[in-house]
Amino acid sequence: MIILGIDPGTATVGYGVIKTKKSKNMRQDKNERPKVIDFGCIKTTSFYSAGERLQIIHNEICHLIEKHLPDLISVESLYFFKNFKTAMPVSEARGVIILAAAEKNIPVREFTPLQVKMAVVGYGRAEKKQVQEMTKQLLDLGGFDFKDKGRSKDDASDALGVALCAVLK
Amino acid sequence: MIILGIDPGTATVGYGVIKTKKSKNMRQDKNERPKVIDFGCIKTTSFYSAGERLQIIHNEICHLIEKHLPDLISVESLYFFKNFKTAMPVSEARGVIILAAAEKNIPVREFTPLQVKMAVVGYGRAEKKQVQEMTKQLLDLGGFDFKDKGRSKDDASDALGVALCAVLK
Repeated sequence: MIILGIDPGTATVGYGVIKTKKSKNMRQDKNERPKVIDFGCIKTTSFYSAGERLQIIHNEICHLIEKHLPDLISVESLYFFKNFKTAMPVSEARGVIILAAAEKNIPVREFTPLQVKMAVVGYGRAEKKQVQEMTKQLLDLGGFDFKDKGRSKDDASDALGVALCAVLK
Repeated sequence: MIILGIDPGTATVGYGVIKTKKSKNMRQDKNERPKVIDFGCIKTTSFYSAGERLQIIHNEICHLIEKHLPDLISVESLYFFKNFKTAMPVSEARGVIILAAAEKNIPVREFTPLQVKMAVVGYGRAEKKQVQEMTKQLLDLGGFDFKDKGRSKDDASDALGVALCAVLK
């Protein structure tokens, strides 16, 4: 089973692709752990209009779906925010991501940050850093070339955590 | 100039198309008033998944753009909400509407409900009903067949008010 995890943001949409046996036993058995296939970020700048940014995100998600043919797309949902002005464009980005999945007939599961924390760390008030660390451990990210295409471990782990959540929950 | 006004909602996206000389003199001169070309609602029910609903909205907006070839799309934006759970799907719908405009190369202007009220009624704390009444007056909606396709005056006036706002501001 191939899962595309997506962490939507205003200027940056993180993505991570994992291949899994849909086993929940990965904490005990290393061989049961999902394999990381791809990860990275879709970045848009304010040089572009809101519409152009949404178009870039939509096109890139469509491209990722065509490339990896995921069985499931796991998207982080908002359930709380500090600033409505930043929450609105994130929701708009979520709209075009979910649209891309529907157009390609890929089922979508949505998880709140709380659900991701519970699934990955086992503790709903875990720090973001803890989720990232546990994701890296569970996915054996040590073996991945993080310098490739200028990608960082943090970019990877947020979206990969959302993908992992779909396996664990 | 043809303007497509859109009032995004969760289950209902209102639309209204007007043809205008982009004159601000419409309050004084009846002949300067925009003409209503089309209006109605895109309705989706919870029978569909979130992705299917966004797909229906996106397809219908694309269809309206192809049909009426608007020079401008005027979309109501959120700047305040009572319930985050309802604001999120409205923002997602806005995302696929703005995407459709970008895909068809149509410029978008966004107006808050406050800006629509100020432009149409001239008073920012106007009641929704007052905006609807003034929209009907300014667009001579008396002559339009409201029973056609089961459309109501209220469906029309919200989205047409947003279209009108783009003319008046």
